[in-house]
Amino acid sequence: MTVRIDRLSNGLRIVTEAMPHLESAALGIWVEAGGRNERPEENGIAHFLEHMAFKGTHRRTAREIAEAIEDVGGYLNAYTSREMTAYYARVLRDDVPRALDVLADILLDPLFDPADIEVERGVILQEIGQVQDTPDDVIFDWLQEAAYPDQPMGRTILGPPERVSAFTRDDLAGFVRTHYRPERMVIAAAGAVDHDAIVRLADDLFGALRPGLAAPAQPARFVGGERRELRRLEQAHVAMAFEAPGYRDEAMYVAQVFAGALGGGMSSRLFQEVRERHGLCYAIFAQHATYSDTGMMTIYSGTSAEDLGRLCELTVSEIRRAGDDMTEAEVARARRQIKAGLLMGLESAANRAERLARLMHIWDRIPPIEETIARIDSVDVTAVRDFARELSGRGGAALALLGPVEGAPAVDELLEKLAA
Amino acid sequence: MTVRIDRLSNGLRIVTEAMPHLESAALGIWVEAGGRNERPEENGIAHFLEHMAFKGTHRRTAREIAEAIEDVGGYLNAYTSREMTAYYARVLRDDVPRALDVLADILLDPLFDPADIEVERGVILQEIGQVQDTPDDVIFDWLQEAAYPDQPMGRTILGPPERVSAFTRDDLAGFVRTHYRPERMVIAAAGAVDHDAIVRLADDLFGALRPGLAAPAQPARFVGGERRELRRLEQAHVAMAFEAPGYRDEAMYVAQVFAGALGGGMSSRLFQEVRERHGLCYAIFAQHATYSDTGMMTIYSGTSAEDLGRLCELTVSEIRRAGDDMTEAEVARARRQIKAGLLMGLESAANRAERLARLMHIWDRIPPIEETIARIDSVDVTAVRDFARELSGRGGAALALLGPVEGAPAVDELLEKLAA
Repeated sequence: MTVRIDRLSNGLRIVTEAMPHLESAALGIWVEAGGRNERPEENGIAHFLEHMAFKGTHRRTAREIAEAIEDVGGYLNAYTSREMTAYYARVLRDDVPRALDVLADILLDPLFDPADIEVERGVILQEIGQVQDTPDDVIFDWLQEAAYPDQPMGRTILGPPERVSAFTRDDLAGFVRTHYRPERMVIAAAGAVDHDAIVRLADDLFGALRPGLAAPAQPARFVGGERRELRRLEQAHVAMAFEAPGYRDEAMYVAQVFAGALGGGMSSRLFQEVRERHGLCYAIFAQHATYSDTGMMTIYSGTSAEDLGRLCELTVSEIRRAGDDMTEAEVARARRQIKAGLLMGLESAANRAERLARLMHIWDRIPPIEETIARIDSVDVTAVRDFARELSGRGGAALALLGPVEGAPAVDELLEKLAA
Repeated sequence: MTVRIDRLSNGLRIVTEAMPHLESAALGIWVEAGGRNERPEENGIAHFLEHMAFKGTHRRTAREIAEAIEDVGGYLNAYTSREMTAYYARVLRDDVPRALDVLADILLDPLFDPADIEVERGVILQEIGQVQDTPDDVIFDWLQEAAYPDQPMGRTILGPPERVSAFTRDDLAGFVRTHYRPERMVIAAAGAVDHDAIVRLADDLFGALRPGLAAPAQPARFVGGERRELRRLEQAHVAMAFEAPGYRDEAMYVAQVFAGALGGGMSSRLFQEVRERHGLCYAIFAQHATYSDTGMMTIYSGTSAEDLGRLCELTVSEIRRAGDDMTEAEVARARRQIKAGLLMGLESAANRAERLARLMHIWDRIPPIEETIARIDSVDVTAVRDFARELSGRGGAALALLGPVEGAPAVDELLEKLAA
């Protein structure tokens, strides 16, 4: 495996990793602009823009964009997160130049035809409806809002229907002008790729993009709080979050190991205690979500109305207990799970391209895998116990509840029990 | 890549494929027994059994099962479908023997401790609640029920809460005795695997299993009908199904190509017409589901209450139109998408192991990839148009509706419009 990095004169970075045994490639463009780069009145525009990229350019109609990739059996898609908008493709070896040409076209030259904007508004309103109907989607939006209230970081990616209903062509063009700058773009490719050919083509396609830095996103501040809604559902869905390190933080892997040992797999404490021993839920897990300047330790579960109180008690008690008696064996197991997951993930070209883009965004270089492994291995049981003990003291807690949640504790009760 | 197949003297089959560039392996045991092998009063027991496998054996507690795999960074899971129950693991190269030992242990020697059965009953009831809260899960259960009413093939995998509440230790042991026979088991492994070592170990672990054929599952008959439920949701969720070839049928790839061209990707007719042109939905797709003796062409979408009628009209009109004017270019594109998807899927060890098991189940051999490609390439536009024209005439239609669906057509109206 060979990682190569180049930089165009306008600042756009290109990173590739050849996987010589593969006949296909994954490639994409990651733009460091997402939901948290929106002003309050812009909420939802980064995602709207991502949709409009597929609606037509000066060279291709929407249909021709889809056909250009699918004619050769490829796959084209995009996503918007809080810090990124990504446009990516999976194609066979010979079709890499075609895929890059299409990606450049939709990113740099969208038409923004007013009639298309109206149609796509309808699609996005339907997408918002779909999220609202899916409890374990909507509850994470609410958790984010409770954790970072009145901040870009706490708003949804899709935006509220009233904003989505109002965006104009000028709004879209303005966001592109401000945020789609070459210094904030990474082209990443993995699999059957020819680095030099990609760099030459990228220079042709993106070389004329004018540099110019946009104002950085507003720093996020974990505040905490709660949002709950009674809804007639079979399950009471509960998610909680605590402030945790961001992805540039030295302590990131301590948080990852803690999340794994607390609720990362079948052998984790929450799975064993809440599901295996008490049978109170089907799904329960802890995850560490990371951003550039903050992070969240989140715990999610779904249970029946009558079991909700007990599930919350047990969860809080497991968090408290972790600070006292987390064992070296559990920490070693979580480290091994993270390392093996990393190595197995690298077998996929799509995961590898995503990882390259993400690492360039974070570090502006690709740390050797040994460096990452060493950071994971350096996490010991003392650090994990300390992390657990300080969990609720760091920035309070956020709580989101949806369903028959009359019996749920308030966020202050939760914090009291954690501190007791 | 080298596929190797062996058979123990009791009939259990072992199939492996070495992927020399990988450092990890995917392996599992696929048992040809699932929901459709249940008697009516047993509905849900195959899935209950899958859960109980993880609850403890004579050698390992539930915790020790989880730790045995996760201690080495591996991943262990299982699923139950209508025709299969699968237990599988992902591990690094050196841990393949350990993983196979754990898989054999949970499959062949589960404790069925009555106290554990009670706890797991609670977990499964929670899982049923979760499905009920997820519209695009529950609607496919209803579609299956409408397509195959009063048949094992039409029942849910999880079973109804009243059955799940009643299963006993004897019920579980009885299902194992009847259905977990070596002739109906395939051990499949792909990635960093040593075939001979796996065969030797499989012989030690499974060699004593007594052969004995269970009664075959009741043949499925596509009948059609509808199930609808008004529920206060943002979206009206609609799924329809038509009878289609099973996976042993010569016409299988005609149906796959039709599904791709009708609603398989961004360039498909349903995506272009219903979403891109009219903006009526976020998600819309057609899929071909296959079983040993039947199949279903399914179409799913979600839309607002006021757009539901129009979405159904457009969908029906696209199916009708496909019989008249599907083009050679569209068929060629769908063929290429299926082929490229197949080739890219083979880059993953987990997909490859799953495919080996599935092919052994269907054909009792692994057809060379060129043979599969040739079958896909043999599908021409005439066959696809003929398939489209006969779609509703083959076995009627099934319709499932959930949400604000007052404005939805009845299944007979749908059929009339298709026939008009």
